Amino acid sequence: MASVTIRDVARMAGVSVGTASRVINNASTVGPDNVLRVREAISKLGFVPDRNAQAMRGNSYEIGIIVRDITIPVLAGFVKAAQTVFDAHGYAMLINSVENNRGRELQMLDQFCRRRIDGLIMTTASEDDAQLVRAREKATFPILLSDRDLTENCDCTLIDHEFGTYQAVSYLIGLGHRRILLITGSTDVYPGRSRVRGYHRAFKDAGLSVDPHWVRFSTFESSTAFFETSSSLDEAVRPTAVLAGGIDMLTGVLKAIRGRGLRIPEDISVIGNSDSDLALLSTPPITVVKWDYEDVGRASAQLILDRIMGKVEERRRIVFPTELVIRGSCSAI
Amino acid sequence: MASVTIRDVARMAGVSVGTASRVINNASTVGPDNVLRVREAISKLGFVPDRNAQAMRGNSYEIGIIVRDITIPVLAGFVKAAQTVFDAHGYAMLINSVENNRGRELQMLDQFCRRRIDGLIMTTASEDDAQLVRAREKATFPILLSDRDLTENCDCTLIDHEFGTYQAVSYLIGLGHRRILLITGSTDVYPGRSRVRGYHRAFKDAGLSVDPHWVRFSTFESSTAFFETSSSLDEAVRPTAVLAGGIDMLTGVLKAIRGRGLRIPEDISVIGNSDSDLALLSTPPITVVKWDYEDVGRASAQLILDRIMGKVEERRRIVFPTELVIRGSCSAI
Repeated sequence: MASVTIRDVARMAGVSVGTASRVINNASTVGPDNVLRVREAISKLGFVPDRNAQAMRGNSYEIGIIVRDITIPVLAGFVKAAQTVFDAHGYAMLINSVENNRGRELQMLDQFCRRRIDGLIMTTASEDDAQLVRAREKATFPILLSDRDLTENCDCTLIDHEFGTYQAVSYLIGLGHRRILLITGSTDVYPGRSRVRGYHRAFKDAGLSVDPHWVRFSTFESSTAFFETSSSLDEAVRPTAVLAGGIDMLTGVLKAIRGRGLRIPEDISVIGNSDSDLALLSTPPITVVKWDYEDVGRASAQLILDRIMGKVEERRRIVFPTELVIRGSCSAI
Repeated sequence: MASVTIRDVARMAGVSVGTASRVINNASTVGPDNVLRVREAISKLGFVPDRNAQAMRGNSYEIGIIVRDITIPVLAGFVKAAQTVFDAHGYAMLINSVENNRGRELQMLDQFCRRRIDGLIMTTASEDDAQLVRAREKATFPILLSDRDLTENCDCTLIDHEFGTYQAVSYLIGLGHRRILLITGSTDVYPGRSRVRGYHRAFKDAGLSVDPHWVRFSTFESSTAFFETSSSLDEAVRPTAVLAGGIDMLTGVLKAIRGRGLRIPEDISVIGNSDSDLALLSTPPITVVKWDYEDVGRASAQLILDRIMGKVEERRRIVFPTELVIRGSCSAI
């Protein structure tokens, strides 16, 4: 396999090798037309500059990815889909699972600045935390926030969790449920906040009022889902349905229900968030709010590349749709 | 959060800033004692050199990771466990899912050479393929093979699949099973080869002969498991037990069995490979051959760092044990 060289890039772009080299090294002496042509040739050829060939201010052709936890299959699917876009453009991915730990998030932002990455796709433990906001603003590269909605000048790719939860809760209300336990993460971040909003809107549209006892938001961890489901099932008045409001929460909900010998859907109805082999192969198969996380991954990768190449001006905010997939885990009461 | 500087490194190592800088930039003029002390200070402090501060032959403090597919939860767990070790030593991970595609594997090896990574943890699509062997031998960095056993001079971390399969098959034979379908990947690579060996050894030790009809090896894909299970269940003489011989194969086996309305374990016994929420939360819970993939991830990371820092001489080959976890998916016949 012959390597693509800077000569190939220069030839395709119709510029001299010197010009191609100056673009790769971010020199300011090249006209915008030539910059665009060289960048496009780099993308098409999958050219990776030798680190030696890069000047001090050179690009790294590396994108940082900060996810909560790479072992959550839909997040890994997001990353893998993003990879297909980056591979095609000669970019590599530096991936780190930060586990919603703000200290580690700060550390990674600092480290990525020193590594001179070209861009970063990240979630954040907090949208408001002053120190995190400052660290993001200080970053030397563009940032794309995934499933976080910020007032800062970042691009965002978001899932329509509000509508997803609205649809799921409306479906349960239609089946006669009123004690619907929603377990989700902090309302300090977009996915928690959106799901709580969708829950309230479904009750309001059905002419019902919300009993805040059934709305639990703290973290998106599977262990939180286990704890909240367990404690509510041990109360005198039990929920009749549980909505796992996070991509990693269905396991915790199922463990709590199985541990008490309860049957789904006879004793309790269950809805998950994001599809999975677990949901599909459970007995009965679990009804879920799902979306195409790979689509989100590809779009996020393309958007950050467009931003790096200066192809977009204004801030972009893309919202991806959700869908309620009805299986066998909910019954009428 | 104050950044760790080269001054902090020099102070801890008890050397001048110039010496620390020469070590970071791999200059050959520093004595081995000082190299070791500076490297250890870098590790302890989690120092990340600014890319600008690196000379032309400088280290990247980046480790490449080539996995088959990051969306397989145990592989993501392996990567996340490795991350904890690399984070503590100031190394970042460049991760790529190559999907057992040898063309992509060659491409990544080439790209990683040009990126001047410090080391690579990888699986490979083939242990024998001449072009892949040559590309690995040509690599400018040390390589650690995970779950691949090579004659080349690479370090390896392996799982004892032979014993795992031996135990699982012996258990099934003890329950009276004889038509035990083993589905696994190609015997060109260590995990496929080891499982087939374990299968044969279990039959031999029970004084039985193997009917090769029940041993299927082609790929480790879930779709292969689905296809092989489906076709064998549609034959006149069915298997009485299925062993999913790959970390991503249980889903395919379960889909084929569910699709035919068969009951586990009444109609067919099932054993999976590697533990998962799916195995644990299935009805009934699935018996599995399991091992600690996070342990393998941490050890692999430590081993490649030791190799980079020149702390080991001879080639290392570490084999990790497996364990049979008996749940409710097998019955006597």
